[in-house]
Amino acid sequence: MKLNCDMGESYGPWQMGNDEKVMPFIDMANIACGFHASDPDIMAQTVEWATTYQVQIGAHPGYDDKLGFGRRSIPHTPSSITHLIAYQVGALDAICRLHNNKVSYVKPHGALYNDMMANRDIFESIVKAISGLNVDRIKGAPSNALKLMILARADNSDYQEVAKQYHVELLEEAFADRAYNSDGSLVSRAQIGAVHHSPERIKLQVIQLSQGYVVTVDGKRVAINADTVCVHGDNEVSIATIAELNQVLNP
Amino acid sequence: MKLNCDMGESYGPWQMGNDEKVMPFIDMANIACGFHASDPDIMAQTVEWATTYQVQIGAHPGYDDKLGFGRRSIPHTPSSITHLIAYQVGALDAICRLHNNKVSYVKPHGALYNDMMANRDIFESIVKAISGLNVDRIKGAPSNALKLMILARADNSDYQEVAKQYHVELLEEAFADRAYNSDGSLVSRAQIGAVHHSPERIKLQVIQLSQGYVVTVDGKRVAINADTVCVHGDNEVSIATIAELNQVLNP
Amino acid sequence: MKLNCDMGESYGPWQMGNDEKVMPFIDMANIACGFHASDPDIMAQTVEWATTYQVQIGAHPGYDDKLGFGRRSIPHTPSSITHLIAYQVGALDAICRLHNNKVSYVKPHGALYNDMMANRDIFESIVKAISGLNVDRIKGAPSNALKLMILARADNSDYQEVAKQYHVELLEEAFADRAYNSDGSLVSRAQIGAVHHSPERIKLQVIQLSQGYVVTVDGKRVAINADTVCVHGDNEVSIATIAELNQVLNP
Amino acid sequence: MKLNCDMGESYGPWQMGNDEKVMPFIDMANIACGFHASDPDIMAQTVEWATTYQVQIGAHPGYDDKLGFGRRSIPHTPSSITHLIAYQVGALDAICRLHNNKVSYVKPHGALYNDMMANRDIFESIVKAISGLNVDRIKGAPSNALKLMILARADNSDYQEVAKQYHVELLEEAFADRAYNSDGSLVSRAQIGAVHHSPERIKLQVIQLSQGYVVTVDGKRVAINADTVCVHGDNEVSIATIAELNQVLNP
Repeated sequence: MKLNCDMGESYGPWQMGNDEKVMPFIDMANIACGFHASDPDIMAQTVEWATTYQVQIGAHPGYDDKLGFGRRSIPHTPSSITHLIAYQVGALDAICRLHNNKVSYVKPHGALYNDMMANRDIFESIVKAISGLNVDRIKGAPSNALKLMILARADNSDYQEVAKQYHVELLEEAFADRAYNSDGSLVSRAQIGAVHHSPERIKLQVIQLSQGYVVTVDGKRVAINADTVCVHGDNEVSIATIAELNQVLNP
Repeated sequence: MKLNCDMGESYGPWQMGNDEKVMPFIDMANIACGFHASDPDIMAQTVEWATTYQVQIGAHPGYDDKLGFGRRSIPHTPSSITHLIAYQVGALDAICRLHNNKVSYVKPHGALYNDMMANRDIFESIVKAISGLNVDRIKGAPSNALKLMILARADNSDYQEVAKQYHVELLEEAFADRAYNSDGSLVSRAQIGAVHHSPERIKLQVIQLSQGYVVTVDGKRVAINADTVCVHGDNEVSIATIAELNQVLNP
Repeated sequence: MKLNCDMGESYGPWQMGNDEKVMPFIDMANIACGFHASDPDIMAQTVEWATTYQVQIGAHPGYDDKLGFGRRSIPHTPSSITHLIAYQVGALDAICRLHNNKVSYVKPHGALYNDMMANRDIFESIVKAISGLNVDRIKGAPSNALKLMILARADNSDYQEVAKQYHVELLEEAFADRAYNSDGSLVSRAQIGAVHHSPERIKLQVIQLSQGYVVTVDGKRVAINADTVCVHGDNEVSIATIAELNQVLNP
Repeated sequence: MKLNCDMGESYGPWQMGNDEKVMPFIDMANIACGFHASDPDIMAQTVEWATTYQVQIGAHPGYDDKLGFGRRSIPHTPSSITHLIAYQVGALDAICRLHNNKVSYVKPHGALYNDMMANRDIFESIVKAISGLNVDRIKGAPSNALKLMILARADNSDYQEVAKQYHVELLEEAFADRAYNSDGSLVSRAQIGAVHHSPERIKLQVIQLSQGYVVTVDGKRVAINADTVCVHGDNEVSIATIAELNQVLNP
């Protein structure tokens, strides 16, 4: 069970997050690509830290909306989504190459992530972008292929099918701090108890996820087969939690 | 003698240039990368046209300044220049890969081009970016290496030396519509007669350049060894001029 | 019946529209405020032309989205809408004061206009902004009060009521080139025949509107009480149409 | 001796500064206007706090450069500077009117401030903007006139003369944490000791300034006649320093 974390979310003079402190404890860094956050210098700094700590790099592309931090859904045609993804992934990949590194996977951000999970056309537009970028990569070595990270759900078979058509491998992620419904979906943020704040509860859920299940809001145990779990390192307490999880998962 | 032309300079709802009409007659398209002009959709459309007409694609990165169209010099540290270039080249290269194509060279735009020619540190920062991007490309095939287009001058030996250290090949370009001083430099735009407007004068200069020289403002003949000449297709007359030049140079 | 037209929609190096040619023939100029189009220099130039031709100036604020030209709906809280409007109207008003002129009314642009007509909360947020700006203006002279332009509909009584609470006067506008349904609403752009392209048809509709009605897609005559009609001057033909309408309406 | 402080420098999801904590202790808030920092919502929040604590509001316009935080000099024509200033002051003034408040003065930010002090044409362009905006304000009441804040120098007589021509009143400011040369200019940031970090040294300098002088880097006492002194509240220590200064200056 890999720990993934959003990174590189500062912008120009504005700092966000504690990337340098969190980086040593995670496996996968989802790095913002300059549209909802980040800029070329911040991307380069974040890639340098990821390289130092041998953390896998993922592109974290979003809608072009810094003011809304990519959390507002902005209408796009399917082909615009494909271009939006390719542009941002290519930009980060080039920054990676300056550090002899590369982008290994793509995890859309915020509203784009939600829209991808809610709308099959948007999902397919993203898969298409990755498929296009994979042609050269696979020529180099099949292991270079970009993967796409999506939300682990009770049934992702339709998305798996689309991805297979484009020869794109999916990674399914769960969330460490989000409560789950008994159908395996996330409890809406509008509901009380949607987000776990206690470090103990978060650690427990990650341990459960690493064993293939979560305990839902109504106390049931449902299977969630996740390749990775998303954690947040917003403050000293949550950084300490990530450090502990890192030790438990990689003893 | 190849004809190169700036392309993809529209933005969102705003159109600039006549890319589709000019594309059939040029050899190299310098495509804007979304910082001083263009956006992911316009880049994709421009790449599609370049692919159709088998025109070589160059990245045309600029300062992040749409309002000033990249014509205002904006202070950057050397490493920021490197990241700025890598970001934009990588973004365009990814869009190219969606069309089974690739970026072949880099020509900085506007103030960044002028700053590069005036400041050796900025030049080296750009060379560094290209060198970093070339590592993987050369692994694929040495012919994939990105080149850097600079202004042909009487003596570029110092820039050639820097480029050689980084194993980056330079392309030297001349201008079809700019008057030259007898030291081989361009007549400043502030002076009368700096720009040729007559199609006949423009065609004459390109023919001269293809033979290795220009006639200067004071009537002298000076040697200019250019790999390519920059043309503009702003209106019907200039498009017709490019079409004629294309026929003369590729009989 | 006043002719209103969107103006100042260029941006930096990119030109849109024929503002200088259209300005002599219209009564009200809706000037973009730098969020979906325009910039401080273009606003100043457009205000100068409006001042020269004694055309009333309206602020034409939009969502902060140049790439999408303000045509994409972007989620905002009600108070954000109020701030968005105040910011843009204030900015244009200051530019006007440099030319001893002022903003007389507000007409939201594109998706913001549509969202205002579809959503009473968004409408009220806009009215609130105008009401706040009116306090000082009315102190100067009640005739200085900013008005709000909305779509003329068969029944705008609920919107009129809200506006009255905030002491904001509404202007209702009709469209010269849009087909109407028999309930007084605009035919959706998704349908064939939604937009009139023939200058004769456009002129006829404006004449009808000036007499208080339109003929609908199904040949019926419905009452539309509009204070002003929106025209477009995209090309030579449409500019000529506006010039003719100007003569007919102001004989 | 009034304390002024830069405020409203957050942007979208990114926070900067401790505006709410600093506001109770200062006299004048220089509020960013959305070009180098801030957005309509942050401006509204900052204006609300200033209104609550009866702090005078100044517009703090900057170059249109969030990435560089307005600290990079960007070339503008004189008339562009006038429009840039008017736009931003007007935008903030409108937000103020939503809170029954107004902008009382203008203090350019960062590179624009430095360029204003170094270049008389830029200074005059800014004065022109303010003069244009003052026409209506003075009609209301002369006390409403916008003032312009500049750097207090040994001799500002040429700038005073220009300002007088346009009937614009100047406010001269000194800096609490910057070392002074014996000619009354600021020690360049490139030199060691340019910035005072010790709270005691900062408090001492403000007390001296309130008495009309500073002690320079080489131990001399030079007269500085400042209307206001600029303080920074970046952390708990500096906020405490401001609170103490507030007590000393307003016993």
